[in-house]
Amino acid sequence: MNKKRTELRLQNHQTYLDSIKNAGVENPPNFVLVFVDDMGHGDISCFGSAAVHTPNLDRLAENGVKMSHFYASSSVCSPSRFSCLTGRYPNRGFVRHVFFPHHQLKGRIINSLVFPYGVRGILPDEITIAEALRAGGYKTGMFGKWHLGDQSPYLPNEKGFDHFFGTYYSNDMQPYAYYRNDEIAIEAPADQTQLTKQITHEILDFIDENKEQPFFVYYPSPFPHNPAHVSEDYAGTSKGGTYGDCVQEIDWSMGEIMKKLDEHGLTENTLIIFTSDNGPWYEGNPGYHRGRKGNFFDGGQIVPFIASWPAEIPKGLEVDATAMNIDFFPTFLKMAGIPLPGDREIDGVDMLPLLKGEATEALHEDLFFIYGLKVMGLRTRDNFKYVDRYPSENSTYKKSKQGPFLFDLNHDFNESYNAETHYPEKMDALRERVEIKREVMKRNPRGWKDNSSR
Amino acid sequence: MNKKRTELRLQNHQTYLDSIKNAGVENPPNFVLVFVDDMGHGDISCFGSAAVHTPNLDRLAENGVKMSHFYASSSVCSPSRFSCLTGRYPNRGFVRHVFFPHHQLKGRIINSLVFPYGVRGILPDEITIAEALRAGGYKTGMFGKWHLGDQSPYLPNEKGFDHFFGTYYSNDMQPYAYYRNDEIAIEAPADQTQLTKQITHEILDFIDENKEQPFFVYYPSPFPHNPAHVSEDYAGTSKGGTYGDCVQEIDWSMGEIMKKLDEHGLTENTLIIFTSDNGPWYEGNPGYHRGRKGNFFDGGQIVPFIASWPAEIPKGLEVDATAMNIDFFPTFLKMAGIPLPGDREIDGVDMLPLLKGEATEALHEDLFFIYGLKVMGLRTRDNFKYVDRYPSENSTYKKSKQGPFLFDLNHDFNESYNAETHYPEKMDALRERVEIKREVMKRNPRGWKDNSSR
Repeated sequence: MNKKRTELRLQNHQTYLDSIKNAGVENPPNFVLVFVDDMGHGDISCFGSAAVHTPNLDRLAENGVKMSHFYASSSVCSPSRFSCLTGRYPNRGFVRHVFFPHHQLKGRIINSLVFPYGVRGILPDEITIAEALRAGGYKTGMFGKWHLGDQSPYLPNEKGFDHFFGTYYSNDMQPYAYYRNDEIAIEAPADQTQLTKQITHEILDFIDENKEQPFFVYYPSPFPHNPAHVSEDYAGTSKGGTYGDCVQEIDWSMGEIMKKLDEHGLTENTLIIFTSDNGPWYEGNPGYHRGRKGNFFDGGQIVPFIASWPAEIPKGLEVDATAMNIDFFPTFLKMAGIPLPGDREIDGVDMLPLLKGEATEALHEDLFFIYGLKVMGLRTRDNFKYVDRYPSENSTYKKSKQGPFLFDLNHDFNESYNAETHYPEKMDALRERVEIKREVMKRNPRGWKDNSSR
Repeated sequence: MNKKRTELRLQNHQTYLDSIKNAGVENPPNFVLVFVDDMGHGDISCFGSAAVHTPNLDRLAENGVKMSHFYASSSVCSPSRFSCLTGRYPNRGFVRHVFFPHHQLKGRIINSLVFPYGVRGILPDEITIAEALRAGGYKTGMFGKWHLGDQSPYLPNEKGFDHFFGTYYSNDMQPYAYYRNDEIAIEAPADQTQLTKQITHEILDFIDENKEQPFFVYYPSPFPHNPAHVSEDYAGTSKGGTYGDCVQEIDWSMGEIMKKLDEHGLTENTLIIFTSDNGPWYEGNPGYHRGRKGNFFDGGQIVPFIASWPAEIPKGLEVDATAMNIDFFPTFLKMAGIPLPGDREIDGVDMLPLLKGEATEALHEDLFFIYGLKVMGLRTRDNFKYVDRYPSENSTYKKSKQGPFLFDLNHDFNESYNAETHYPEKMDALRERVEIKREVMKRNPRGWKDNSSR
């Protein structure tokens, strides 16, 4: 990245944000985006759990939409978070894996080996939902786990959040402190059993303070990422160990937020989305899907998804068509009447037609699966999935001995059989589409529309 | 193993077989034991497959018993086969992993590194179902994949089979020839697309020849182990790729055997068992269970199980209680009126009460899970499961970072949550039972009743 070009990008970025000021719809909706950590598709009751009881999430689903095939953009943390906030595939920002703490030598070494071009967080020229909404008149607050850089210029307050209460990385990394904006609020090591309560109260206060204007609450809970923790009130309440208890306390937290919105008459015009950054790790239930965190099988990337917006979204809808968390950015901006930036690829699409039940087929021709900086697979609109040889359950960190695979998810939803022999032409076509996408992204990884390479 | 003791063991072995000659019941049943390779719990229609259509197996289940929680004794091949034929946990015979071909240097090196005491197959002093039944007047035939040693004195004809048509190891190992008794019947490399047909015809001929006397057919199909192969007749017939087609051809094979038994009026008094040696590998469907071949999660060891014996077993029974393939040896011998050997531990129990619907609870207090030569977990009668830290999906060949786990399978059938925090006493108790069993087995691994160590 030469310096002049970097300056130009940042200028364009600011020009875009300035241009938003007079955009916007009348009576814009509020947004509450809950993005929990490592929760599986089958970890809440309305997605089939027999061990974990989640009455508030179930009620949210009854009053809104459940999606059965909603994908995180990555099967690991930081890349998925990048997509959630920017609407772009993780390789656009060179976010090829999770960031490690820069306070520790080990973390600095890993980061320097893993990330190219000195990238250590979300780049300043990336546009987040928070930046766009704030420019459009929203108050923006973030509560929980950031994991897109633990030093300036990558911090939440630098990427669009008026208010930040949370931590910079996962709860198994040290030093594990909590910050309120740029000050330490809870010294490391934080007592993790109190975190869900503390975060929830901070959110409730934020809603109280901002109830008179449109707001965006981004709530990336640090849980149920391992080691899961729970307060005394919820310890032992589930049939799912501490992990299950922890999910039940998250459900409590959801209930508190829903009550608060009700209290201020805000429920009707608030879009609440509840989802997870990737599939479950050592603990957690991927539902009936194959695989877990860290690989391309659906158990690693299909996550629970519930959305509620009583003003516009029907009650009790169940959507089978696919979508991905790259879709949040364009969807939220559209809802708020804010135009998309014109200088870069936005990989997501407005998913509102699915949530309203106006569309029943996937809105993406293909959804791509990225590993590191490389396109490694895709899922088609007609439910075929191609995955390259890297990685699998038996070799999370090295090339699988078997594959590539073509899965016919119409008859084989848990990816058990290689359908290549039955559909050799389909296999070739999908492989080619992956290779083309790979080539395009290699030439212009960041997706600048002026076609410059970075 | 000192020489004198070895001779004593072999003498005892022969004395036992001689003692059987006058045992036996009137009108003893025939046995057809089908032991397919790497097939998953969800790979046939009557166990929920949407992709694979198995009308003959479905009919077999309708006329007999399905077990939903039947375990192979190991999540890999040779150890499970050892248990299937001897009624003993795999470590009893030092079968700690799969045997590699001795014709190749690589195989000899692996075997010498993996197996202790020069063991290269099932030891001569082990008693197989075939030896016991043959001594009791049965004709015994084996058709398919042996994988308990590829040289004398470990060969099928040396371990009780009057007739052998098959191969010594897996279909991804070389040289892959087929033998009829001690002569090559099909030169390596065998055309694998024809094997299911050839094996089936050999079985039909065997039944024709032996219809007037009790017989034991042991049919360890080489499929659907990867690379699955299928004849032209079945190519492209399933929605499960070549793997699914291959399962459908196995279903055809089952149909031919069932027809042959009908033709000779033998169905009524023949026990047919259909099961698999372990869970699925890269392809295949473990049903809704966690894990695959090579690890302790149930997907690696819970396998499909169907049994039919119209004379004694009710129609359409579904059994949820657990059992394991160590139970075949005592069950078959009991049915044939043959006493168990007295000089050694038989780990299995007579499972007929379950198959008849007379018992509804597991007949074992604990079922143990063995890795290598070590006890690494157990499943209790009340459906708790303890598994030690080795291995898991993300580290098949090395110690997992997480665990040990206590799973409460009553509420968490796919092993998603560590219930240790809720049941610390149970966790301790189960760990202790594993440690005690480990200790007992370490002192007397082969389970000699005279308490000598080997």
